[in-house]
Amino acid sequence: MTWEEKVGQLGGIRRLAETVGGKVSYNETSFEEIRKTQNGQIGFGAPQNYAHDLLPIANRVRSEQINNTRLGIPYITIADSVNGLMISGGTMFPGAISMGSTWNIPLYEQAIAAIREENIAMGTHWVLSPEVDLAKDPRNGRNGEMFGEDAYLVGEFAAHYINTMQEKDANGFVKVATTIKHWVYGSSSGGVNTASIQGGLNHILNDMGAPYVKAIRESNPLSLMVSYASVDQVPMSMNRYLNKKILRDLLGFKGLIMSDAGSIRNMYTQAKVATSFQDAGLKAIRGGLEHELSPRPPSVYPTLINSVNDSEVARLIDDSVRAILAIKFATGMFDLPLPSVENLNATLRNEKHLEVNRNISREAIVLLQNDGTLPLRQSSASRVALLGPYADVLNTGQYAANNASDPSYGSTFRRSLERQLGAENVKFVAGVDILSSNDSSGIDEAVSVAKEVGLAVVVLGSGWGSFDNSYESLHRTDGEGFSHPDLGFPGLQQRLLDAVLDAGVPSILVLSGGQTFLLNESTKRSKAILLHILFGAVNPSGKLTMTFPEAEGAFPVAYDYFPSDDEGGFGAATEYDWHLPELTRYAPIRFGFGLSYTTFDISSTSLRCRTNSNSNNSSSSTADACSEDGQVTVTATVTNTGSVAGKEVVQLYFRPEYTQIEFPVMKLIRFEKIDVAAGESKQVDLTVPFQELGYFIDGEWTVEKGLYNFWVGSSSRDEDLQSLNATLA
Amino acid sequence: MTWEEKVGQLGGIRRLAETVGGKVSYNETSFEEIRKTQNGQIGFGAPQNYAHDLLPIANRVRSEQINNTRLGIPYITIADSVNGLMISGGTMFPGAISMGSTWNIPLYEQAIAAIREENIAMGTHWVLSPEVDLAKDPRNGRNGEMFGEDAYLVGEFAAHYINTMQEKDANGFVKVATTIKHWVYGSSSGGVNTASIQGGLNHILNDMGAPYVKAIRESNPLSLMVSYASVDQVPMSMNRYLNKKILRDLLGFKGLIMSDAGSIRNMYTQAKVATSFQDAGLKAIRGGLEHELSPRPPSVYPTLINSVNDSEVARLIDDSVRAILAIKFATGMFDLPLPSVENLNATLRNEKHLEVNRNISREAIVLLQNDGTLPLRQSSASRVALLGPYADVLNTGQYAANNASDPSYGSTFRRSLERQLGAENVKFVAGVDILSSNDSSGIDEAVSVAKEVGLAVVVLGSGWGSFDNSYESLHRTDGEGFSHPDLGFPGLQQRLLDAVLDAGVPSILVLSGGQTFLLNESTKRSKAILLHILFGAVNPSGKLTMTFPEAEGAFPVAYDYFPSDDEGGFGAATEYDWHLPELTRYAPIRFGFGLSYTTFDISSTSLRCRTNSNSNNSSSSTADACSEDGQVTVTATVTNTGSVAGKEVVQLYFRPEYTQIEFPVMKLIRFEKIDVAAGESKQVDLTVPFQELGYFIDGEWTVEKGLYNFWVGSSSRDEDLQSLNATLA
Repeated sequence: MTWEEKVGQLGGIRRLAETVGGKVSYNETSFEEIRKTQNGQIGFGAPQNYAHDLLPIANRVRSEQINNTRLGIPYITIADSVNGLMISGGTMFPGAISMGSTWNIPLYEQAIAAIREENIAMGTHWVLSPEVDLAKDPRNGRNGEMFGEDAYLVGEFAAHYINTMQEKDANGFVKVATTIKHWVYGSSSGGVNTASIQGGLNHILNDMGAPYVKAIRESNPLSLMVSYASVDQVPMSMNRYLNKKILRDLLGFKGLIMSDAGSIRNMYTQAKVATSFQDAGLKAIRGGLEHELSPRPPSVYPTLINSVNDSEVARLIDDSVRAILAIKFATGMFDLPLPSVENLNATLRNEKHLEVNRNISREAIVLLQNDGTLPLRQSSASRVALLGPYADVLNTGQYAANNASDPSYGSTFRRSLERQLGAENVKFVAGVDILSSNDSSGIDEAVSVAKEVGLAVVVLGSGWGSFDNSYESLHRTDGEGFSHPDLGFPGLQQRLLDAVLDAGVPSILVLSGGQTFLLNESTKRSKAILLHILFGAVNPSGKLTMTFPEAEGAFPVAYDYFPSDDEGGFGAATEYDWHLPELTRYAPIRFGFGLSYTTFDISSTSLRCRTNSNSNNSSSSTADACSEDGQVTVTATVTNTGSVAGKEVVQLYFRPEYTQIEFPVMKLIRFEKIDVAAGESKQVDLTVPFQELGYFIDGEWTVEKGLYNFWVGSSSRDEDLQSLNATLA
Repeated sequence: MTWEEKVGQLGGIRRLAETVGGKVSYNETSFEEIRKTQNGQIGFGAPQNYAHDLLPIANRVRSEQINNTRLGIPYITIADSVNGLMISGGTMFPGAISMGSTWNIPLYEQAIAAIREENIAMGTHWVLSPEVDLAKDPRNGRNGEMFGEDAYLVGEFAAHYINTMQEKDANGFVKVATTIKHWVYGSSSGGVNTASIQGGLNHILNDMGAPYVKAIRESNPLSLMVSYASVDQVPMSMNRYLNKKILRDLLGFKGLIMSDAGSIRNMYTQAKVATSFQDAGLKAIRGGLEHELSPRPPSVYPTLINSVNDSEVARLIDDSVRAILAIKFATGMFDLPLPSVENLNATLRNEKHLEVNRNISREAIVLLQNDGTLPLRQSSASRVALLGPYADVLNTGQYAANNASDPSYGSTFRRSLERQLGAENVKFVAGVDILSSNDSSGIDEAVSVAKEVGLAVVVLGSGWGSFDNSYESLHRTDGEGFSHPDLGFPGLQQRLLDAVLDAGVPSILVLSGGQTFLLNESTKRSKAILLHILFGAVNPSGKLTMTFPEAEGAFPVAYDYFPSDDEGGFGAATEYDWHLPELTRYAPIRFGFGLSYTTFDISSTSLRCRTNSNSNNSSSSTADACSEDGQVTVTATVTNTGSVAGKEVVQLYFRPEYTQIEFPVMKLIRFEKIDVAAGESKQVDLTVPFQELGYFIDGEWTVEKGLYNFWVGSSSRDEDLQSLNATLA
């Protein structure tokens, strides 16, 4: 390969097509211009483009590349794939935060398998997912793309995403390569997407980097994307220490490392830690970055061509070319035929995928509050006043196709309800706009319709505001590029809700969005509060994966804070009476919590230890001596004490009694979702090797001896947990 | 010395006396019990105790210790001293954040000299101040004890505090030893006082630790207090790396290192990183802590007596004894006579101190908004409706004497105004309570009085709520132990203000407190907004040292954010149009800003470089080549273009064009406050050695070559600054 050919592999053409005047437009001039210097991969471009329009264009340029270039090295097609195809026309699954709320790993695997098949049908064999960042800052506009606030849960979903996507086909090819991202990111300044992080290796490895540790150990992501963040003032796109010393050497990551979109350029244009584009490129490749994502010019890696006489740079370019070629070989890019329109038609939104989507959507619903009003009976609630702007919006997040104006691509809450009750029985009034607006003129009508009908379902939220907005449109209030400096509902939505509640109309509040909201005292007057769209005969079984803050500034709010965080401020007054709290760190609407239409009793909990070879059982729930190479099993019996079938998530948390450096008050370590018929009991065994109960001290994995506390139950709330102990000898 | 005598020096008796039934009570039993094992220093106890009551008790126990113990090693008397004596009876200066707002270092030195003399009159020769933490989280309840958000300004005030307190007397004794604190602390989780910090050495040395670097370089604090925080999961009370490697070896700190109150105990009881009190003590002394502050039992260091056979521990105990004895020798504890009641009477609140207090209080006033309503003229504003609960509260912060129920110890805003206008002309209605309360019954009366008078002064705030509350009382909304999960005015104060403004009464809003508040659109309808109590014939000259956030969650908000923090969220939309901001990082009511009754013009700005030996002048305002061992001088002419005399603060900011790791968008590096008569012009020269313009990379001080940007002007707002360049060759 010539140096030009090598450097070309280090980038790609992110936007195969744009939408111009509502139609897909392939811009050959722009494509060919970029292609001269960046030709490793191609991407589809704006999400409002339709799959069926794009496939012929993609096939044409891919075929041309294979047949009409000197070496015939194929492109690999790359795309984001958070909760479906990023382009329009595929099955739109719920956002990652919603799928996380199912706590149902086997069901999630089915969804990812469906998403994988739809990607393959488009010829996409490399996805820029999963996102394993921890949703710990409620202000962050990307929380909807993440699975939740807990490192174990996030790592568990991520590992299954990766293993499912990267399943091998009959020829031994990886079906779809994955990209774990954003290394590393979390709790950034102001909740801002690209902002700085303060760093600290213990914090990185034990908290925001922990999903990487788990995913790398349990799956094998073929690539990784760095974050936009500066960590301790060093941008990740040039962070040799974290990319090489920690990620490669300590954690053993073997895949390709890529930039985030434009993040190498940012070092020069934004963070000003490079004196030119070329300097930024050199710092990036020396910092471990083997590939550049650059959705629009200028790109930086083409400037590396000027440095090929530098033997270090030349070697790094060679390594980088090897890294992308390894992915192309692994995924069969040199061997597989281009995808057919017939297969596309048979795959996208086929009945099997839609069925999986219905199942996972149902399990993603979280019931937060219910005074018995739910479930509604059609006999007594034959007519409904449906209020709020999010009642008629498909709010599936930023990295899902957002050109859903054709009803055949999905039903809004309104359309679903109309199908069930008859359109004439659903009185819909948006009342207010989804955006910040001072127009309150629709509120009176909403209130009078609510009064007339006598039952209101109010759907409020944040996210994508209208069907016809384009990617660049301002018709959204959430997503990448947004940070929420207040945590209320955007615009006048709260005023609409207050007005309906003030009028005394029994109301069910449905929250739609990828974030947590501040639920104030007024809001809590609602008869029932449901998180995520959907409503019906399904018994809710979702559990929160993000804790709801109790006040605008009451964060970080994740359940796994440090013991010392809970005193001297938000903290509950303890023996030291001069700590005068306004609020405790312990938020009641917290991680793992969610109601059902039935009730569950968790009983007969016990704990036993076992060494790897011989079993040394003990069913005592008190301290029990265990050995370091053994495992602990916590057993619990779940009884459905209500009158309808339901699903319960049994959750296991732990904490060593003493640790050498501070350790969170509790950490999730296992969970299992089970289906229990009314009156039925089921036993759940949750087993954890003791070696998994450690933590990093200055990069060294450390498992404490001594007393361990375990808690098992149905949420992270004190009242939902039972405690057990074990002693590691 | 016996081991018991040695270990005894490592602690003290923090509370010499308590207040029981409103009277000072010396509890001999409790004192003697603690004294058996902890007898290095003594403190006075609760701040509502009066100096005149305490001195005889203190003298009695000090005399007894010198005369009736085997070795006769004297106690040293220790006290907090943020803005005056911590006990009652002294001159109550404005809080640290207010004194910082004067930007007047010579005046601040006068205040500290007065505070020093009052401490000496009480026999106090060791203070637990200054606090050099950066006030970067608006939620933190201790911001009022700090100087502001900027490391240079904080370091400047701290160095002058230390040098003034530690001035030597005629015998060569240090007058009062100081304690720089809390190493290290800032941006802790949730804005909570004792909570965790994420760490990262660059962040520590360049940001929250930077005032230590400056203060240690420019003064010589004889002691240092660690923070409650865990930094990257390691509590500071056992943090060998930061206390020894960084503080001692890298920064060269030579003084005594002490715990914060109870912080060693917390390692066992709270953070659970120690298995017992004794284990906590061993970890602390090995972590570099030479002295334990323990306001109440149990103390930890007495348990060290069990470990004196361990040669490492024995050596550390010896080092620790040497450290406190060095302070006692330096401050003349073995030589000076005990203080007399006559000198106490002549010193506390003497006319000279009160005059300094009046001067610094006047300069601490910051005028934030004024449509011309201010200054009021007595002719046209002979009567005033004085509203709001803080109009009749002396709100001097937590670490100042708070038993100010005797009017002779200070005048509230109400009393001052009554003196000026006549009591019959000041119609005072509190309207609402200072605490969270649902009682809005007083608002109607406040509005009707405001309407009747036609001019309202509304004093709102947060802090200490009543004159007669005790230290443990709940009658406060700010101070240590508080974090503010929302940034509005506590209780119904906003409702009171809104009602008065809704009624159309011209209103002047006065903010009282040690924090920033969210000033919403309603609030900004006020005719004028003043920060800090006081009002009158003085021309305001204070400047903010903390930026005001624009929304509840819009923080960190300090002016010196990183360039990459300002994009992708709060950030202004730049060339990348898909960043959709709700708010910019750049808050308009920002660091360095404050209005005057006159106007200033800053002109004829120029920049010149000079090497250390020969001068190489150039008055060009464009790029100019400077040498590394030289200095840069920025010159500006300040003209008072209004009709009254006033004071202006000329501020110099800088930033290297490119840096190796991320550097803030700008940093303050010099300031000077000048007094300019109406129509007069004055020239200001601000000189900085280039060596001071560096930053730490992994512990190494680095001064960049190349282009530097400087900005000079009257605030950190873009419109108040003029830019100049220099090139370091």
